[in-house]
Amino acid sequence: MPNPVTAALVIIGNEILSGRTTDANLPYIASKLNQIGIRLMEVRVVADREDDIVAAVNACRNAHTYVFTTGGIGPTHDDITAQAIAKAFGLPLERNAEALARLTRQYAPGDVNNARLAMADMPHGAILIDNPVSGAPGFQIGNVFVLAGVPSIMQAMFDGLIGRLKGGLPVLSRTVSCYLAEGAIAEGLAALQRRFPGVEIGSYPFFRARRFGTSLVLRAEDGALLARAVEQLRALVTELGGEPIEQEPV
Amino acid sequence: MPNPVTAALVIIGNEILSGRTTDANLPYIASKLNQIGIRLMEVRVVADREDDIVAAVNACRNAHTYVFTTGGIGPTHDDITAQAIAKAFGLPLERNAEALARLTRQYAPGDVNNARLAMADMPHGAILIDNPVSGAPGFQIGNVFVLAGVPSIMQAMFDGLIGRLKGGLPVLSRTVSCYLAEGAIAEGLAALQRRFPGVEIGSYPFFRARRFGTSLVLRAEDGALLARAVEQLRALVTELGGEPIEQEPV
Repeated sequence: MPNPVTAALVIIGNEILSGRTTDANLPYIASKLNQIGIRLMEVRVVADREDDIVAAVNACRNAHTYVFTTGGIGPTHDDITAQAIAKAFGLPLERNAEALARLTRQYAPGDVNNARLAMADMPHGAILIDNPVSGAPGFQIGNVFVLAGVPSIMQAMFDGLIGRLKGGLPVLSRTVSCYLAEGAIAEGLAALQRRFPGVEIGSYPFFRARRFGTSLVLRAEDGALLARAVEQLRALVTELGGEPIEQEPV
Repeated sequence: MPNPVTAALVIIGNEILSGRTTDANLPYIASKLNQIGIRLMEVRVVADREDDIVAAVNACRNAHTYVFTTGGIGPTHDDITAQAIAKAFGLPLERNAEALARLTRQYAPGDVNNARLAMADMPHGAILIDNPVSGAPGFQIGNVFVLAGVPSIMQAMFDGLIGRLKGGLPVLSRTVSCYLAEGAIAEGLAALQRRFPGVEIGSYPFFRARRFGTSLVLRAEDGALLARAVEQLRALVTELGGEPIEQEPV
């Protein structure tokens, strides 16, 4: 069931790789993309190094419909995303007139400085992405969308650009949980997967209130097919002595 | 200051890419590696697809000293990490005798089944990684360490294998925060970075108690060099009208 509209996310930042900061953007972007029928297929976390960013962006933009990057678009010396994206596309980096106008309006005259204005430097031909939180815009170039790393800003940018994305059929998902160990249900589950090649079945163990259990996530574009698979899964769980607990469809 | 001993992490699992599950293993592994002088340079999140796992593992194991994978080593049909690693190395997948003995001991005779025993299937030559939490071992093959995805199990496995890793000089880190905007300190900071090429300076904006501020993270292997850079950074913050707030060295 590989969704034909796919995406990749490139997370840029030493702070993620050092463990200092825990990324919160992946789950947000993944969920939003799901809702509009775009499947996130790949994520890469890279350091604030130009060669690493260029390599990751070029690999991803050739393999996927859309690429999103987060991080590295602020005013400090370690913010090198715009220049790396320009290099990845073989385009000159230039001061974007509209971005410059926005930045100039935003700051009191005494607060304007070169570091802040450099946030208007983007690859030639970039289309701005609004930043309603802190002003400095992101940008789109080709199929690559360049966003801030701070989650509140990234989310506002993403929500604003979502109208530019063209998704496929949304992937429907249902979850059935039970207090059976994965190993107890594995064989029946593999048979179910063979009977429903059009449904992607994921199995996730959990340990809750001192009991082992398994959450089974079924995903498909076809709602009727999904419903039949869920029905057979519930029967399997019951047959093995478990009680199927279904969460609200999401 | 690129640390010569580097690592990559390959996170395997559709549940991360769909946004259902938020990864918690990256920060743990990054912090532990830091402590022993190994630098995490790259993370890839891939789907439960053999080709994707093979490509990511092969790219990473050729580029870095160590590679860690998380996820996909349970008993269900979507757990395909072991076979993908075998394929990446061009090695046969075979039932590991010691892993089989452990699994057989662990289950009551009535609970032994093919799905559970298949967790003993590993590439030829694999060295086991103990799993004190739930029994089924991970494994090492070459420079690749294959771990569970459930954080409590992954952490126990990682803590047990850490003696097999040979690190370089630990990277020391100090953080100075202030209530100055990034854009206000950016130019002075860039000059500081030029004066201290051996110190990696990262700048991270924050918004706390309705005030904008910046956390500056300085990292170096040389403690004396790091101390001089921190001293000059504190002077810069003060000169710009801010108050340097230093957290405990970590």
